[in-house]
Amino acid sequence: MDCIFCKIIDGSIPSYKIFENKDVLCFLDIKPDSISHTLVIPKKHIKDVYEIDNETLSNVYDAAKIVISKIDKIFKPDGYRLVQNNGIVQEVKHYHLHIIPIYNDNDNDFTVEEVYKKLSK
Amino acid sequence: MDCIFCKIIDGSIPSYKIFENKDVLCFLDIKPDSISHTLVIPKKHIKDVYEIDNETLSNVYDAAKIVISKIDKIFKPDGYRLVQNNGIVQEVKHYHLHIIPIYNDNDNDFTVEEVYKKLSK
Repeated sequence: MDCIFCKIIDGSIPSYKIFENKDVLCFLDIKPDSISHTLVIPKKHIKDVYEIDNETLSNVYDAAKIVISKIDKIFKPDGYRLVQNNGIVQEVKHYHLHIIPIYNDNDNDFTVEEVYKKLSK
Repeated sequence: MDCIFCKIIDGSIPSYKIFENKDVLCFLDIKPDSISHTLVIPKKHIKDVYEIDNETLSNVYDAAKIVISKIDKIFKPDGYRLVQNNGIVQEVKHYHLHIIPIYNDNDNDFTVEEVYKKLSK
């Protein structure tokens, strides 16, 4: 399967992993909308909202909550926008939930690698 | 409880209901980002992603899929952006999932009432 996210899951493409269990993988978006913008993906290849089952959805959200709690501790954002795109607005055709932290104060600026180091401590 | 969505649920504030069951209510956003922009809310007052349990999440997504299937039939959008806001970006503090249809061709323009009539047929 020629899916970039499946390749991230099997390790043939590297990623900045924030959290992982047997069902899901969470990694930093390399083109972040904000500091610590993270993607949560199921490990099985599921395309989109039409295909996702409730068990996988629960796994995705359980992991999202763990990631949010990690980001809360380090970067203390003022909110989160959770976004999941389908159809023409979905770039990679493997279900992914964007966790986009929202900051009132945007003074800080970190590279994805710096964010990764802070979240991995 | 002074929650506008709880008042929509109990009927004291009217809404353009698209789908409803014992657990969730789906109604048109009166300030839509696009044609047939819909909100899905749990009937019990749950604030946000921190509070939502997996059973409620499944109920929300089961209803979202029904709404998407209705919108697909009538308006045939080219995609959907699903958005759920928390913290500073969450206007009403009652969990709501935005179903925002995306259209390549934005020639059509309907009022919320016209959209409601088409979806209710």
